[in-house]
Amino acid sequence: MREFELDSFPAAIDFVRRLADLAERENHHPDIDIRYRRVVVRWSTHSAGGVTDRDRELAARTAELL
Amino acid sequence: MREFELDSFPAAIDFVRRLADLAERENHHPDIDIRYRRVVVRWSTHSAGGVTDRDRELAARTAELL
Repeated sequence: MREFELDSFPAAIDFVRRLADLAERENHHPDIDIRYRRVVVRWSTHSAGGVTDRDRELAARTAELL
Repeated sequence: MREFELDSFPAAIDFVRRLADLAERENHHPDIDIRYRRVVVRWSTHSAGGVTDRDRELAARTAELL
């Protein structure tokens, strides 16, 4: 789980759009909680019962979307 | 709190974009949880300690965004 704080609500929504594009390309979809200009992102793999190497890689790539 | 189930993840993200536009116009921002193609929306007013008539109105308008 990682929380990202953006400068504004529209900036947070733009970040979610970029994240959603990544998720759709990868066909792997994180849980996303939007709290005004903070966005909580959780990558996990239900079928594996937790966090895999791929989840960790996608978490790192999420941070690059800022 | 209300949960909306869309047809796909991209459709859920488009719904969140429309919801975000409404929120920004109203300068009132709900909590939004994205769970693949399900979106949980909670309108509340922290300064009022709960749900106001305005929150209920915006919740009704959220359903019209589907």
